Amino acid sequence: MSVAKKQNMLIAQSGGPSMVINQSLVGAVIEAKKQASIGRIFGSLHGIQGILEEDLIDLRKESVTTLEAVAATPSSGLGTVRKKPTAEDCTRIFEILRAYDVGYFFYVGGNDSAETVHIINQEAIRAKHPIHCFHIPKTIDNDLRSNDHTPGFGSAARFVALALQGVNLDNRALPGVHISVIMGRHAGFLTAAAALGRVYEDDGPHLVYLPEKPFSMTQFVKDVKAVYKKYGRCLIAVSEGIQDSKGVAIAAKFSKEVDSHGNVQLSGTGALGDLLVAQLKAKTSIGRLRADTFGYLQRSFFGCTSVVDAREARAVGSVAVKTACKGVKSGSIAIKRKPGKAYKVSFERVPLKAVARDAREMPNTFINKAGNDVTQAFVDYAAPIVGKLPKPGRFKGVKVKK
Amino acid sequence: MSVAKKQNMLIAQSGGPSMVINQSLVGAVIEAKKQASIGRIFGSLHGIQGILEEDLIDLRKESVTTLEAVAATPSSGLGTVRKKPTAEDCTRIFEILRAYDVGYFFYVGGNDSAETVHIINQEAIRAKHPIHCFHIPKTIDNDLRSNDHTPGFGSAARFVALALQGVNLDNRALPGVHISVIMGRHAGFLTAAAALGRVYEDDGPHLVYLPEKPFSMTQFVKDVKAVYKKYGRCLIAVSEGIQDSKGVAIAAKFSKEVDSHGNVQLSGTGALGDLLVAQLKAKTSIGRLRADTFGYLQRSFFGCTSVVDAREARAVGSVAVKTACKGVKSGSIAIKRKPGKAYKVSFERVPLKAVARDAREMPNTFINKAGNDVTQAFVDYAAPIVGKLPKPGRFKGVKVKK
Repeated sequence: MSVAKKQNMLIAQSGGPSMVINQSLVGAVIEAKKQASIGRIFGSLHGIQGILEEDLIDLRKESVTTLEAVAATPSSGLGTVRKKPTAEDCTRIFEILRAYDVGYFFYVGGNDSAETVHIINQEAIRAKHPIHCFHIPKTIDNDLRSNDHTPGFGSAARFVALALQGVNLDNRALPGVHISVIMGRHAGFLTAAAALGRVYEDDGPHLVYLPEKPFSMTQFVKDVKAVYKKYGRCLIAVSEGIQDSKGVAIAAKFSKEVDSHGNVQLSGTGALGDLLVAQLKAKTSIGRLRADTFGYLQRSFFGCTSVVDAREARAVGSVAVKTACKGVKSGSIAIKRKPGKAYKVSFERVPLKAVARDAREMPNTFINKAGNDVTQAFVDYAAPIVGKLPKPGRFKGVKVKK
Repeated sequence: MSVAKKQNMLIAQSGGPSMVINQSLVGAVIEAKKQASIGRIFGSLHGIQGILEEDLIDLRKESVTTLEAVAATPSSGLGTVRKKPTAEDCTRIFEILRAYDVGYFFYVGGNDSAETVHIINQEAIRAKHPIHCFHIPKTIDNDLRSNDHTPGFGSAARFVALALQGVNLDNRALPGVHISVIMGRHAGFLTAAAALGRVYEDDGPHLVYLPEKPFSMTQFVKDVKAVYKKYGRCLIAVSEGIQDSKGVAIAAKFSKEVDSHGNVQLSGTGALGDLLVAQLKAKTSIGRLRADTFGYLQRSFFGCTSVVDAREARAVGSVAVKTACKGVKSGSIAIKRKPGKAYKVSFERVPLKAVARDAREMPNTFINKAGNDVTQAFVDYAAPIVGKLPKPGRFKGVKVKK
């Protein structure tokens, strides 16, 4: 019987943190500890930056208690980075992986991170020094191709749904117009989740604007006036990424900060909300106009993780390691939903190219014709991922005769 | 044995909603149903506006199931209003109360609401038609005089503490400067709560700015630079109500909206956060600068109510009704903390004047000398009201030799 040569593993986290990205990390580490073919387990601090700077920690030195505590904690336990590696970086990363005798490389992140893994994998193939290169999916944006949905989305969506339930109650008690600005550069899934907590006929959000549909300021003002006339109030959920018919982000005019992926800064500023309020102030006679930008709370809030999301995030990490240890050379682990009424998923290996670079948008069937709300199909799709939401109590309200 | 003549009761909610204001409402209604002296139970929609418009609902028609469901729901179940009644309004309110044979009037709100109750009570005394007039405390600002703390604060503070725990983890993973703008016009209690979730030595918020201490932009920039130098990141909690040494709100320059109490709009806009970011951008070389304004989430979020806060909010409603039915003519129910190590409170009737109009600020003992953080005394004070917070997991992080 031949004993397989042990090789080391390196894992890192990338892109925006999520509430469950540590579940994937810990799922991978715990699985790796079971695998005879894996030697040392390195965690790279701040994504590929930690590899380039050889800033690694020894994850075998962490107790199960610590691993589980980190798994239950939001944000990236190893730190993360928003850095798109150059071709030179990729060569250097590959060389470092080789120097540390890494045979298993796992990178948890979104489509940009999958692209990075893909490039490193190609480098390894070219150098004829194969390394198992795996991408583990994570993005609150829910915009990875080949996936029914992505780890991180369910919990962020849960935060957004709970927040809108509260804001709706607040707005009902103290009527006016309220705008919630929600993360999502190109994909509207997270903004759409604002609708998941609606229970009563007059519950908001009454209007939902997504990056997938061109945003017209004129139509927006018309929509708000119509809702306000009907309910005496209007609750709006709007994606930070809404853009005009030419594809120019409405918020982009107000920010010049660009990251190394060429993306304009949309989060961490209240500019879009304030801009929309200013428009309504100028073009309607509504007195009470407010905007809140959810910002980083929606991806990092401590205490509203979706149970399903946490479980699936753990699974993709674990399945990635298992798949690599079975001898599969590269890939990403995608979440596929099984047909049928009951919610069931499977975790399947897909090629890196199937998730890398290009992202996906909301399908048209999830958006209403007017482009200002979601459909029941979206609600049916997202509800099991987000988990059960509270049902707000409401008085029957039998009026007293005057 | 003489049978006391039954008189009707009217209850209303006022000011900004909170996560537990419905507990007080339901506590009062459930207690009222036990009292032989109380006839019908009217709920006024949208505070005194509902009285003036005779827009009342019959709260005896609500089932216990509905009452309990409403109690567990954030925001004001009867609706609320931000309206300071004129002298004429007060006369009219008193006349309507008399017309509906109301002998028991309860108004749930903050110091402005207590003032309204006080004026109506004086009107009733002048007209020699006594009505039991009670104020039931509620304010997330925690700024009512005569109270150790106020219902609504604990839950809003819990939201803020959990949010900062998450934002701190996010900022540690992806370093930079992050500013959280928190509600609180004159009192810094809620902003101070940002510090409650700190566990590790480097945990943020690293700087906390409160309305009680004059805010200097120059000192602010210095403070941020010093923290950034030490930790490579800086997390800041700042009250929306921070003001300069002349008492001018830093945010006020950016908003002209004024409510009927003469207050400038501070919430529902990202202007203050964006202004502070712009200052740091101009005066430091720090690349990653973000600001989030928590807005209405902190008073309405569905799912992070403090258990202690909910219980106490229920109690003040119930005690107000009991006290009135014992024959006390007017007052407010204050929360007093009992001396000793274990957290215990009592609910005491205080005169309306003792809570009306003027608010209180954070005591000096809760703020550090530099005016940019809270003290351990504040943490000890607030912790039992907010409830146990999660302990974030963190890797031991044994470095791998290069």
